[in-house]
Amino acid sequence: MSLRGLGVEPRCRCIETESQRIGKLIQSVELFPPTPHCEDTEIIATLKGTSQEICLDTTAPWVKKVIEKILANRNL
Amino acid sequence: MSLRGLGVEPRCRCIETESQRIGKLIQSVELFPPTPHCEDTEIIATLKGTSQEICLDTTAPWVKKVIEKILANRNL
Repeated sequence: MSLRGLGVEPRCRCIETESQRIGKLIQSVELFPPTPHCEDTEIIATLKGTSQEICLDTTAPWVKKVIEKILANRNL
Repeated sequence: MSLRGLGVEPRCRCIETESQRIGKLIQSVELFPPTPHCEDTEIIATLKGTSQEICLDTTAPWVKKVIEKILANRNL
């Protein structure tokens, strides 16, 4: 459980982030820019199959690569 | 109406994409990599306030910049 919940509560969504490289399990990635309620960017991945939502480490190079791959229209 | 709906239908989600630069209106951005059901990457923005969902042009330079800004932990 790395997410507080899916409401629009006025605080950060992520409690902890996934450290393992789970790029191949990712179905989609949602990016939340900083807001007055949460000063950090948050990246939440939805996993294939289960649709489980996992917070990713926004500073991890593999996370950046996953996003670049998606932008380049390549399969994960 | 640029989205077909939010189900997990086996086809592309976006029918048309927003051409205007709406970066400042964006609350979050979701990236969908290509799948067997949709060969194109899709980027769907959720707007501030209304939570309206809008498909973005994945090839537009301003869209790439919005994503880079989020990754750099900067406000939109």
